[in-house]
Order: sequence, then C-alpha cells, then structure tokens
Amino acid sequence: MVVLPCFEIKDEDLLARIGRLKTKSGVLETPYFFPVVNPLKHKQLVTTTELQNMGFTGIITNAYLLFRHGLTHDDVHRVLSFQGVIMTDSGAYQLMQYGDIEIDNRSIVKIQCDIGSDIGVILDIPTKYEDPRDKVVYSVEETLRRACEAIDIVENCKSTLWVLPIQGGMHLDLLRTASQRATQIPGYTVYGLGSPTTLLENFMFEKIIEMIATVRGIVESSKPLHLFGAGHPLIIPFAVALGVDLMDSASYIIYARDGRYITRRGTYRLEDLDYFPCSCPICSKYTPKDLMEMSYEDRVKLLAMHNLYTILEELRNVKTAIREGRLFEYLVERAHSHPAAMRAFKTLIKYLNLVIRRAPYINPRAKAVYLFHYESLYNPRILIPRINIENNLDPISQNLLILIGCIKEKPFIESRCVESIVEKFCNTVFCDVYIAVPWLGTIPLEASYQYPFSQNEIVVESISNDIVEDLMYLVLDLVLKYVDKYRDNVKIKIVCVEEYSWIRDFCLRLRGVVEELNITKNIVFYRVSRDLHMHNATPPFSR
Amino acid sequence: MVVLPCFEIKDEDLLARIGRLKTKSGVLETPYFFPVVNPLKHKQLVTTTELQNMGFTGIITNAYLLFRHGLTHDDVHRVLSFQGVIMTDSGAYQLMQYGDIEIDNRSIVKIQCDIGSDIGVILDIPTKYEDPRDKVVYSVEETLRRACEAIDIVENCKSTLWVLPIQGGMHLDLLRTASQRATQIPGYTVYGLGSPTTLLENFMFEKIIEMIATVRGIVESSKPLHLFGAGHPLIIPFAVALGVDLMDSASYIIYARDGRYITRRGTYRLEDLDYFPCSCPICSKYTPKDLMEMSYEDRVKLLAMHNLYTILEELRNVKTAIREGRLFEYLVERAHSHPAAMRAFKTLIKYLNLVIRRAPYINPRAKAVYLFHYESLYNPRILIPRINIENNLDPISQNLLILIGCIKEKPFIESRCVESIVEKFCNTVFCDVYIAVPWLGTIPLEASYQYPFSQNEIVVESISNDIVEDLMYLVLDLVLKYVDKYRDNVKIKIVCVEEYSWIRDFCLRLRGVVEELNITKNIVFYRVSRDLHMHNATPPFSR
Repeated sequence: MVVLPCFEIKDEDLLARIGRLKTKSGVLETPYFFPVVNPLKHKQLVTTTELQNMGFTGIITNAYLLFRHGLTHDDVHRVLSFQGVIMTDSGAYQLMQYGDIEIDNRSIVKIQCDIGSDIGVILDIPTKYEDPRDKVVYSVEETLRRACEAIDIVENCKSTLWVLPIQGGMHLDLLRTASQRATQIPGYTVYGLGSPTTLLENFMFEKIIEMIATVRGIVESSKPLHLFGAGHPLIIPFAVALGVDLMDSASYIIYARDGRYITRRGTYRLEDLDYFPCSCPICSKYTPKDLMEMSYEDRVKLLAMHNLYTILEELRNVKTAIREGRLFEYLVERAHSHPAAMRAFKTLIKYLNLVIRRAPYINPRAKAVYLFHYESLYNPRILIPRINIENNLDPISQNLLILIGCIKEKPFIESRCVESIVEKFCNTVFCDVYIAVPWLGTIPLEASYQYPFSQNEIVVESISNDIVEDLMYLVLDLVLKYVDKYRDNVKIKIVCVEEYSWIRDFCLRLRGVVEELNITKNIVFYRVSRDLHMHNATPPFSR
Repeated sequence: MVVLPCFEIKDEDLLARIGRLKTKSGVLETPYFFPVVNPLKHKQLVTTTELQNMGFTGIITNAYLLFRHGLTHDDVHRVLSFQGVIMTDSGAYQLMQYGDIEIDNRSIVKIQCDIGSDIGVILDIPTKYEDPRDKVVYSVEETLRRACEAIDIVENCKSTLWVLPIQGGMHLDLLRTASQRATQIPGYTVYGLGSPTTLLENFMFEKIIEMIATVRGIVESSKPLHLFGAGHPLIIPFAVALGVDLMDSASYIIYARDGRYITRRGTYRLEDLDYFPCSCPICSKYTPKDLMEMSYEDRVKLLAMHNLYTILEELRNVKTAIREGRLFEYLVERAHSHPAAMRAFKTLIKYLNLVIRRAPYINPRAKAVYLFHYESLYNPRILIPRINIENNLDPISQNLLILIGCIKEKPFIESRCVESIVEKFCNTVFCDVYIAVPWLGTIPLEASYQYPFSQNEIVVESISNDIVEDLMYLVLDLVLKYVDKYRDNVKIKIVCVEEYSWIRDFCLRLRGVVEELNITKNIVFYRVSRDLHMHNATPPFSR
C-alpha cells in the first residue's frame, strides 16, 4: 500500500477511517463535510466567518461561478474571506443542470490552480441516474479523457490536491471499469464519486451504497474518496462506513429555502413542527413558532445553520463510534431511524465480504460488542472471530463436550458453571471443550480470553428464533466435523444449562436435526439445572 | 374519567401524552423534567437564571434543606431567584440516605405550603430496591398513613399541587395495592413513583418499566404521574410511553462532578472522548480537550449544562414523536441504541395489553406507519386494526380469494395488480377478497382506505422469517374460519404475486401447514408473474 504524504489514517473501523488530509491551508480531519458556499457574498446567507465559528475548517465553492463573475483575479481565500481549506468544484454540476458552460476543462483546471484552491476538480461529465447507458459510457470516457488531458497542469500544480471524479452512476460495471482506469492515471490524490445528488434527493440510498462499495472495492485504502452532493445525515454513517472520507453539499441551504428542517432521523417541514427535536444553538434559542414569525431571510439563515449543526453532530457521532470501535452498532441504531436508512444498511450488509477482506482485524481499542439485535449477526467483530475459529478448527480429542447456556460469567474458563461441568465430564478423559453462545458461536474453551468472547454484552431477551437457529447450525457443524473425523469412536456430550427459555427450544431443534442426520448414537444430551445438578436426558426436557 | 381542572391533555400516543399542568406560577408543558436545584446558591453551579435561559420553566428543590438552612422565612421563588414553577421535595431522599431527619411529615408539608411551593410532596418513606419485603411493607403503610395524616393541610392549601408518592418498589403486588389505596385518598393531584434512583443508576430499566406499568395500570389517565429520580435520556422515552408525565433528577450535576458526559446513547467519561457527539451550545463551542484543560468548577458547570441540554433534546424528540403519532417507531429506534434501552423496550412490550386497553384508538394525526423492523409487529397502530379485523371477521361468501404480494400500489382497491386478479377470479361469482401483507395481516379489500392499510411504508428487504411466519399464521386463521363455517362448500383461492423472494417461502410454508391440517381439497394455489400472467400451480413454484 502506497502511503500518501498528504493523507494519514489515524483510526479505522469497518472501512471507515479517521484521517488527516494535509493541504497548504491546513489539515482537515476526515470524515469531513464541505458546505457549499456561493462565491457571490450577497447570495451566501451564512457567512464564511459564521461557518468557521460553527466549526467548519473547510468549505467548497464553484470555480466556474468565480470565473463567470470575474472573481478569479485574486486568491480564492481572500475573495471568500476564509483562511481555512477551500475546495473548488469545476462547474460540472452547472454543466449537468444547464447543459453547457462557456469554459473548457484545461482552462478551469488552470484557473483553480491560479486562484490557490487547496483541492481542485477537473471538469468531469456528471452521470445522471436516469441517463441511458450510451450516455453514461460517454460520461465515463470523456471524464477519463479529461483527467488525462489535464495531467500536465495538475502535476505542475502540486500545491493543490486534485480530485478525479469517477463516473458510471448506477451502471456498476461501468463504474468498476472507470475506477480501474482512473487509478492508473497519475497526478490525482482524491477520487470522487460523481453526481449522486438526484439519488440522494430521492432517498435512493441503496443505489448510492452499491456505487460507493463498487468504487471502494477498487480504489486502494490509502486514497481519500469524495462523495459529491451528500448532505443528509441519514446517509452519512453508511457512506463513511464504506470508506467515504469527504462529502459536500448545498442541501443545508436548499432545504432551508424550502422550509425544510433536517434531523438525523429524517426531514420535517418547519410548519409541521411544534418542537425542535435538537439542542443546537439555534434550536436551544428559538421555537418553530419564533422562526415562522421571522422574515424569510432570517428564517432561512437560521434553518440553514441548524441544518449544518445537524450534519456536524452526525459526523462527530460517527467519529466517536469509529474511535470506540462500535461503528457497526451505530449503523444498526441509525438503520432503525428511517426506512431509507434501513435500506442503506441492508445494502451495506451485502458488501460485508469487502469489509472483512479490506479490514480483517479488529480495532484493538474496540469496546465490548453489544449483542442485542438480530443485525449483530453481521457485525464483523463477531464474524471475524467466528471465521477464525472455523478455519482453525481441528478435532484433537475423541471426546467433545459442548456447553450451552453458561453465558453469564466471563471469561468462560473462569466461570463456576463451566468449571463444574468440565470437572464432571473431563476429569478422567481428555476433552475438547466448546461453549456455544448466541451470536458468538462455538467458542473453544481455551479461546475464552480472546476478543470478543469476554468483551460482550448480551441482552438475553433479544435472543430470537433466528439467533437460536444460527447457533444450532454452528453447533451442528462442529458435531459433524468430529463425526467425520472419528466416526464411531467419537463421544459427544451436549450439556444444556437450563437457565433461559431459549435453551429448551435450541435443544429441541438440535435433537430434531441430529435424528434426521442419523447421528444420534454418538451424542448424549444432558441438562443441568440452575444449581448445577446434572441429568442425562433427551430433549424436550421436562420442566 | 374525572378531568382535573389543573391538568389538560393535548395529545396522546401509546400511554404518553402531551399535557398542560397548571400551577399558580405558570403552566408546565408535560412530559416535563425538573432539574434538582440546591437551595444553597453557592452550591448550585448552574444558576436558576441559566436554567431558565436554557428553557427550563420549572425546577425542583428540597424543602427539608431549605428548612435546615433557615431559608423558609420567605417565598421559595424569591429565595431561589426563580419566577417559574417550583416543586419542592420533602427530604425523603435524605431520609433514605442518612436514615433520619429532624422534622416530621405534617411540619414539612406545612412548610412547603407556607413558602409558596407550586408542587409539594409529603414526607414519604422511600423503598430501597434491596430492602427486604417487611421493610417495603412498612414503607407502603407508613407513606399511606402520612398521606392521610396530611389531608387537612393539603386540602387547606389548594394553591399548591400535592404529590402522593406510591411505594412498593420492585414488589409489584405491594406497589399495586399501594396504588389502589393511594387513589382513594383525597387532596392529591399528582401521583409519584418512589425512589427508583438506585435502579436507574444501575441501568435496571426493566424493573422501572414494570413499576411504571403497574402504577399506571391503576392510576387513572387524567392524573399526572411523577417518576422520582429519572435523569437519563435512555429511560425517558420508555417511561413517557407508559404514561410518566413528570420527572426530576440531580443526575446532570452528579454525573458532571464525576466527569461523566451524558448522551442519548449512553454515558461517556470525558477523558475517553475525542469529540462531543452533540451540537448543543456547549458542545458546539468547546472540545473535550478544552474542557479537560479548564478548572474543575468550570468543567463541571459546562458538563452539567451539556447534560441538561441532552435531557431537553430527548424530551423534545419524544414530544415530536407523540405529535406525529410515531412514538412506537421512536421507541424501536431508541431501543437499538443501548442494551439497557433494549431491555426497557422488551419489558414495555409485555405491557401492550395495558397500552391497547387504555388507548384503543389511533391518534387521528398519526403519520404513515413505518414497517421495517421485526419489532413493528408489536406496534399498536398495527395491532389495533388487526384485532378489529379479527373481531369483525364474518365469512359471507363461499368463495374466498386471498392475494399475497400486491403491496406496492396503495390503496389496494385501486391497484392494477389487485384489480386484474379480482377481475379474473370474481367476475362471475361473489367473492370475499383479502390482501395479505407482511406486518399488516389479512386485510379485507373493502378496508383498503382504513388507516394504516394505505398509510404505511414497508421496507421489503426487512421481511424476515419471523415476519413471514406471522403472516402465514394469519392467513391460516382466515382459511380455517371459512373452512369451519362452510366445510366442503368453500372454495379458497390463494394467489401469490411472485415479485418478491419472501413470497415463495411464504407459499411453501403455507402449503406445508395446509397439508398437515388435511384441508388441501378446498384450496387452490395460483402464482402470478410480474406481468400478471396467471398459473395454477402448487408451491414450491418453479422459477
């Protein structure tokens, strides 16, 4: 992996990372969101000073608009009165909206260099999601051609970091090829994922997730990825989880002009709100009624500021989750906040292989894993150790002891419940001992100390049928491995600690499958009551 | 139902309500949280003026401490420099902490009246959750005795609203009897649920939920209910959903003194945070590092203010959810934020009968119901119409047509999919037509317009095995009703629209059960392809 001198990764969880992107005007901590700033000051209701005071260390403006209004004579930082990081877009969005603009690619790239842009973008050809395939092919080809066409300028303008937007839109095969070819072009530091704005506006999050995963599957981890037009907190955690580092949007002001109030759980119309479900400085000071009674300009400005505070809050939540290694839990929570977020989550789940391939280790600072929802079965912090156990499983002894239900005391190897059962069954013979735990799977006793087998918090009431079934199949896999290896010589003891209602169901199902497979002769079931009194018994156990 | 002149209910969802509690110093909008204020000004870091500016229109202080420090010579509003609503507690908490206090019940009640308290509390005997049963019995009896003992004072002090704390703690039978007896005592406006502070501190939310449900099951809806010591945003939505109207706590400052930062998703230690996952005025201005570098007093004050902003934000979120009739969805989301919240939710689910009995109608302003998680099967906005259909089900015709899979176009009766199938099967015979929809159940076609059959948003990807099984049993129930009534004369057609993968699974399971029950001869399965081409076929359908 090539480490870029200008992009340092400080922390990772899933494919998300907290990074430092170094520009000539300062360092941006990623994931970062650039608010779009109109270069015409009288049209920018929230001033650049106000943005800076809110905590924005970087903004994005439009080089084409600067050019059209004769504002390219001076350094862009002076023009916008902003001393932080300034990214400039090229006018591609205007191209998409209005069909044509009166400047060519090389000229707009040159201008961005001349005005001292910290991060610049070539004049790409955006893909509209409703575009027919041949038009998308043209976007891909022409954008790549333009990226090549500008190589000499970008390579001679090293003080600016250059973004190469990747086109292809919802045509994932085109997007994949475009990504592969883009990574071959020298001179660019950041890759961009072009124009999902219309998809985002229509909350078609599943498409965006597919697009991000496709590009991230090819662009190497060391390179930052920019998602153009992402300005709703509902998409941010999912985009970041798949490796998006930078985002920008004008949604905060577009929504505000339309009277829309952004929350982390969806968008409301101002007139439908009786309360502001937020504690930002705007919402702590005003009520919806106050805003309704203001002038349009004042109202839009305050709404825009609230919308921006909400985006900042979402980003800080995501970063906090990355730092504590609980981004997956955070995604599950966010998924339950809105149908569109759930669709994003369900789509993200399809790319878990990519996540595990790219990030096969667990953040050493990860806190205890929370196991209290079905979706946790997909948590890489569960999957990775389960895969490791599966891969390293080697039946050593012909005596297999599986304990089910000793989940309270941790580490298992120090639990009185485990100790007394093992003592009873293994004091004269050598045994392989496994503990079967919902979500966590079949854990070799000697792995008790490994993360997350002692670092987890299970809500027993959340052990649903699906979770029981998952565990049942894992236990069955384990049993079959021993039966395959030792045939008639294996002695398997399955000990169920009758402390929870799911255990009964578990044992009953397991017995059913074991009978179907005709392997009952090797297996003895035991039940152990709460006081650790043991019985040899066939499920279903009497009460 | 007796309507109290001082408590008006404006809006309801589940057992939660938005109300107006009228006191002599102003109206409190409920659900409301009273921050605990130390009557000694130099000990109160966040001043009453600051509390008022943050949006607190009421505070709670301690009448016993006022008395002990000789501060009962003047109106409590002047003593605390606070013109809003002041509730006073009686010193019961001090009694619990220190065992004995040097004042009796009648005197402290009298004092609260004299100092102009807006809401006062008798000197109850708190229940500690670890108390043995005989001690709890004493708390119950002595508290009730004291409530009676003070009747003449409270009845002669009508300018103060009086709270009767109900004891019993985790002994739900005692709590139930105590509630019944408490409601017989005249003079009191508000009921209190005593001393769950230690349970709350230990995040034993399931116990609190049981206690609240027990009391709410007896205390009539028109009476406000106060939960003593509830000061963590994780418990607020669940407590409010079961009908808690008022809360108070000193947690904001106790946590702050201990360097703990409260969030709506749990509590962090300040030193573990790199970011503030919040946008309140404190967190928008400072970083964790800034706070770490401050003096202890400054840090504690800012942390306390943040903690209070977080509680306010939670309350405004809950109220917004009540207003839009989506409190259940909100609870599901919050349940996924923390294991303790999930335990609270799972416990609340056990009391759905109480919820439906007390609130059998759907808020007419309720928005579309979100159906994208397993837990929505318990949403009263789904359960109530399902129960209504079940109760009013009357097989009229001997031709039963059940459509499965036409869930895109709404209302169903206007859907092309439904129309063309009904036309094919029912143009010569009279039919009873039902649409079977995950979560929603079996809907008579003529009920298409009823809430929520056209007012819902389903995420198809979230239709899990459990949801399919639920629907399968509902369809089976429907089928059996017709078979029972018409025996061999009934003709049942089950038409599966093969648009989604769950349909295949559904039909396969249904066929299995139908065969087991030996009722196949009345039933014909059809499958309909996307283009509405129909086939008579037995599941599993070929692809």
